[in-house]
Amino acid sequence: MFTPESNQFTLSLPHWATDQLNSLPAKLSTLEERMEAVLLFAGLNVRHQSGGPFAAGVFSADSGRLVAMGVNRVMPGNCSSAHAEIMALSLAQQRLGSYDLGAPGSDAHQLVVNWCPCAMCFGALLWSGIRSLAISGSGPPLEELTGFDEGPLHPQWREELARRGITLQENILREEAIAQFKTFAASGQPVYNGRQG
Amino acid sequence: MFTPESNQFTLSLPHWATDQLNSLPAKLSTLEERMEAVLLFAGLNVRHQSGGPFAAGVFSADSGRLVAMGVNRVMPGNCSSAHAEIMALSLAQQRLGSYDLGAPGSDAHQLVVNWCPCAMCFGALLWSGIRSLAISGSGPPLEELTGFDEGPLHPQWREELARRGITLQENILREEAIAQFKTFAASGQPVYNGRQG
Repeated sequence: MFTPESNQFTLSLPHWATDQLNSLPAKLSTLEERMEAVLLFAGLNVRHQSGGPFAAGVFSADSGRLVAMGVNRVMPGNCSSAHAEIMALSLAQQRLGSYDLGAPGSDAHQLVVNWCPCAMCFGALLWSGIRSLAISGSGPPLEELTGFDEGPLHPQWREELARRGITLQENILREEAIAQFKTFAASGQPVYNGRQG
Repeated sequence: MFTPESNQFTLSLPHWATDQLNSLPAKLSTLEERMEAVLLFAGLNVRHQSGGPFAAGVFSADSGRLVAMGVNRVMPGNCSSAHAEIMALSLAQQRLGSYDLGAPGSDAHQLVVNWCPCAMCFGALLWSGIRSLAISGSGPPLEELTGFDEGPLHPQWREELARRGITLQENILREEAIAQFKTFAASGQPVYNGRQG
């Protein structure tokens, strides 16, 4: 038996996120400030045991205003797609009332993430309308340190971003991001991956 | 100002979906029957103008019980990630109370889609825990007929599925699926794509 309730789902940030968001400065001008905010949320998500060690922010690229922050909610949300990037992009689109963060007349938007997006989130950011991506790093360290499977990222992912006019900035606060993954690994908190059975 | 409401989002199937789901047979034994149901929902989504021409079903692979059906909700949901596959997988996971449709002790689950998943949804299905994927077709016809951008699918997507133990069955009711895309193209309904501006 299907019901209207069984045909909808809701994903939310953890309870602690609202106050934290309101305590951030109104504008974060530099890339480093934006990444610091993202790392703050990734770290808090681990500390509160409210999801995996990942966060992502959607910013107005020029003004530095934070439109939405996402953290990983896979396990608490019972949703394997609830990665930080999907949360941030979906919340930003809801806030702006548009499926397209690059719609004509809208601010240019930037996605800031505490590592290179996984295979799914790489696709998601192409569809989101963002115009730039800033990441703390990419490649093996994340998988090696934490055990999270990042999936088969497209081998020409940098070229695919460029081809679609999405600017890429890498290695923003890389060491700080890696230090957080080490803290997560030492915490003994669960690492979900596709299909445990 | 952030609020608990601004930090959550809800995605839902269209209103017509509940009755339609309850009027399906309790079990759909063959792949063709499952794809027929998926094509029915894709067609209804176009007819009701409630999203793009895509549907996806999560079935218990052995019994043929439908766990959840998704249709594309990008434009009505203001969410670029609300592809049919993400809807179906998220609703199925909510229904089973697990982020892993392949968790130990759970039924094996199959995802049935009316074309090859896009770059994002390919990643999403790897994380979902499904054990098999059945599609009506793949490659250029969808993009050529409808104008929808499918993004850079991983060049070894078939091998990546196999490597993760996900069975692939292709060309299930291919001509029927293509006929639907032609109907959609002739309808003049909007084709969203990443970043219109």
